[in-house]
Amino acid sequence: MSTSDIFLGETIGTAVLILLGGGVCAAVTLKASKARGAGWLAITFGWGFAVMTAVYMTASLSGAHLNPAVTVGIAIKDGDWSNVPVYIAGQMLGAMIGAALVWVAYYGQFQAHLTDPETLGEEPIEGPGPVLGVFSTGPEIRNTWQNLATEIIGTVVLVLAVLTQGLNDSGKGLGVIGALITAFVVVSIGLSLGGPTGYAINPARDLGPRIVHALLPLPNKGGSDWSYAWIPVAGPLIGGAIAAGIYNIAFA
Amino acid sequence: MSTSDIFLGETIGTAVLILLGGGVCAAVTLKASKARGAGWLAITFGWGFAVMTAVYMTASLSGAHLNPAVTVGIAIKDGDWSNVPVYIAGQMLGAMIGAALVWVAYYGQFQAHLTDPETLGEEPIEGPGPVLGVFSTGPEIRNTWQNLATEIIGTVVLVLAVLTQGLNDSGKGLGVIGALITAFVVVSIGLSLGGPTGYAINPARDLGPRIVHALLPLPNKGGSDWSYAWIPVAGPLIGGAIAAGIYNIAFA
Amino acid sequence: MSTSDIFLGETIGTAVLILLGGGVCAAVTLKASKARGAGWLAITFGWGFAVMTAVYMTASLSGAHLNPAVTVGIAIKDGDWSNVPVYIAGQMLGAMIGAALVWVAYYGQFQAHLTDPETLGEEPIEGPGPVLGVFSTGPEIRNTWQNLATEIIGTVVLVLAVLTQGLNDSGKGLGVIGALITAFVVVSIGLSLGGPTGYAINPARDLGPRIVHALLPLPNKGGSDWSYAWIPVAGPLIGGAIAAGIYNIAFA
Amino acid sequence: MSTSDIFLGETIGTAVLILLGGGVCAAVTLKASKARGAGWLAITFGWGFAVMTAVYMTASLSGAHLNPAVTVGIAIKDGDWSNVPVYIAGQMLGAMIGAALVWVAYYGQFQAHLTDPETLGEEPIEGPGPVLGVFSTGPEIRNTWQNLATEIIGTVVLVLAVLTQGLNDSGKGLGVIGALITAFVVVSIGLSLGGPTGYAINPARDLGPRIVHALLPLPNKGGSDWSYAWIPVAGPLIGGAIAAGIYNIAFA
Repeated sequence: MSTSDIFLGETIGTAVLILLGGGVCAAVTLKASKARGAGWLAITFGWGFAVMTAVYMTASLSGAHLNPAVTVGIAIKDGDWSNVPVYIAGQMLGAMIGAALVWVAYYGQFQAHLTDPETLGEEPIEGPGPVLGVFSTGPEIRNTWQNLATEIIGTVVLVLAVLTQGLNDSGKGLGVIGALITAFVVVSIGLSLGGPTGYAINPARDLGPRIVHALLPLPNKGGSDWSYAWIPVAGPLIGGAIAAGIYNIAFA
Repeated sequence: MSTSDIFLGETIGTAVLILLGGGVCAAVTLKASKARGAGWLAITFGWGFAVMTAVYMTASLSGAHLNPAVTVGIAIKDGDWSNVPVYIAGQMLGAMIGAALVWVAYYGQFQAHLTDPETLGEEPIEGPGPVLGVFSTGPEIRNTWQNLATEIIGTVVLVLAVLTQGLNDSGKGLGVIGALITAFVVVSIGLSLGGPTGYAINPARDLGPRIVHALLPLPNKGGSDWSYAWIPVAGPLIGGAIAAGIYNIAFA
Repeated sequence: MSTSDIFLGETIGTAVLILLGGGVCAAVTLKASKARGAGWLAITFGWGFAVMTAVYMTASLSGAHLNPAVTVGIAIKDGDWSNVPVYIAGQMLGAMIGAALVWVAYYGQFQAHLTDPETLGEEPIEGPGPVLGVFSTGPEIRNTWQNLATEIIGTVVLVLAVLTQGLNDSGKGLGVIGALITAFVVVSIGLSLGGPTGYAINPARDLGPRIVHALLPLPNKGGSDWSYAWIPVAGPLIGGAIAAGIYNIAFA
Repeated sequence: MSTSDIFLGETIGTAVLILLGGGVCAAVTLKASKARGAGWLAITFGWGFAVMTAVYMTASLSGAHLNPAVTVGIAIKDGDWSNVPVYIAGQMLGAMIGAALVWVAYYGQFQAHLTDPETLGEEPIEGPGPVLGVFSTGPEIRNTWQNLATEIIGTVVLVLAVLTQGLNDSGKGLGVIGALITAFVVVSIGLSLGGPTGYAINPARDLGPRIVHALLPLPNKGGSDWSYAWIPVAGPLIGGAIAAGIYNIAFA
């Protein structure tokens, strides 16, 4: 894979991932959306199929990591860090493009939600403010060590599932079925481990959109909760490294 | 593929698509349906599996485009427009047949819903009138540029996913697994980008049934919202063209 | 396939189908079930995965028709009726065994539901009586011609999807992926065409359990609605024949 | 497969299974979880995808039984009991590790739930106490023979589906698609047969976490319902043996 294919694949793939993932949060939470109130199953399947769509679309270009924790896990497993900066640069750029596209697709819904006194005061489905949850994650109970542990555990499951794919797919990597399995692994992590922190399990998924939230001209948007922002970056990176360690000990 | 196979495949396939897709809207919204109130997850999975069933059934006849936006995207990608009129003619005819079959299958439910003062005054789940939503899409917030943008964005995701299938399926095109992946891509677009406009993402899916709505002898049916009708035609066609452009630049 | 394998496969397969399909109706509707109120999505996915499990388990023995409408459709397509009686005998026996096993698995729930004055008077989720709906289907609006039409339309979709599988699976028939696709076709028919009549789309699925309902010593069970019983037998058989006709004209 | 690979695979796989399976129960039932109230569909898909993730991850190490009932069924089918103790030891250890990880991931939620007078008095979604249901199963109606019968019937379906996989997969065993099919078989059993007892269908899944529940320093946790504990051990083992018997008679 050439450097430009990797960068292009990760940028397009992560943009699609965040467009669809942030989109389902907007669909379920914002005022004047047909999907409002569709609930946690809609959010978890929405994120799972977002991963499937993005992986399937871009696997042939870059291998479709779409997540710095996956990139770090694969780098540790293979002992090859040469392409890591390109992967992460594409992932961060893609995540920011995807978050901006959510804003375009739900422009009227953001405006209606943020200028209506009734919805402005509502409890968010996830995240510390009513609209920040469309962009970034936040904990239900703020506890540094538990929040970090939950993100680490969820990411270990994700990255270990990605790393062991090669053992079943006879070397084809993230192919057609791999995209489907990965989708349902992500639904699984959402359903089972998403309750406490909203399962970032991906530094680019959380940090990129948080920067976009800080930049966008949204009325009454409130803060971007920067004090929490390091946890969904550090937790997944630690989790990816632990998964690679488990892989090298138990599976290699 | 012969011209008659293409026409037959697209007609049967789009009829099945709209029978099942319009059917789930009727099932979830109309009075005296066992599925009434089953919600947005039912609608999005219903449309996704409608696509899967129709694609799987007719892929061997016509390649199962079932959507003028897909046909245009493939024509731009391949630089071959010779079969485009046959595809679109079959899709429009099939969509109208499918919408008429929804009316047959839910005949009593339409009658009950449209003659009961209570349900007549209800808010529709989608669309500008209580029963038009079974046939065609409509926006929650009427805003030409946002509505068009949302339909374009949704269709780019759909058509790009279809165009990149060949890269993973090693030339087999829309086969067994392709039908399943496409189904979940459609569920994904519905869950994530369906909130503002009801995700037509297919000119035939919206225009064909709208014509049938205008023709059917439904009591108290109200107007067919023709002022909005151009958006779910133009948006998906623009989206299909953009997807083909992205494909030719980044993936070819 | 030997006659005894066909009989064994259809008996075991249809027993598993009705155990799981009737089971999800019991789970969602009966008092003192953990799944009570889980709704129409649970019922449609429950029946779909019931089909998947049964097809997957018995495809190697009998080809897993599990439905006289499928058997008739395949017989018309192939012009070979020699095994039809064995298939249908196995399906009817299996359906009755499956219905009896639902009664065993939910024994306490049936007793609690049928002896509690509160639940006895409740509206059923499907069927004309509170407990008959666990065994057999019934219409929301009783209208012979519409009810028959809805069952015919649903079965045409099912049997056409089964008959066209060979075109995609390159001769492998109902294999691993076929079982999954068939499952989601059944979910699709349930979501989209199940609203008016509860989608029997299978004579054995409806008639076998209805006989068991008439025989079981359930307290206060009410009648078995025999006046409706011919519709979910005739409709699916007509639908299977029409599907075979469409197949022979358009796909063969 | 070496003994150490079997032990490692079963330990890791069952730990992931219980982490994700217990996790979805915690997510749906505990106070201060974003998924609270997501319902029975979330629980059944959560357990199904937990099985898929764990099977997919560890199939190459140990064949991914992850369940003593599966191990016993395979031993009877093959007439080879030599590795049974290693399998079951790994499964029990893994189940206990998984249950402990649920406690870590939901630490704050357990604390909040068990110290809040309002949630302490709530009815559990499953199990005889508000928090025990995250770890172990319990019946809605306590009736030894029905509870045992329901667990036996559910496990027969599960183990028969696992044993017949080889007939469809042409000898590849629990591969990529097998993991997906198995996941949906588990969802099916949950939706259709989970209503009366909460579908343990796996002695390690129930007994391992019950021991951890007894050991953990949870405030106000109540008893571990040891009088019921033998049923979700004996029922699944009997069911696994019956499934192997059916397999040897009808399928071998």
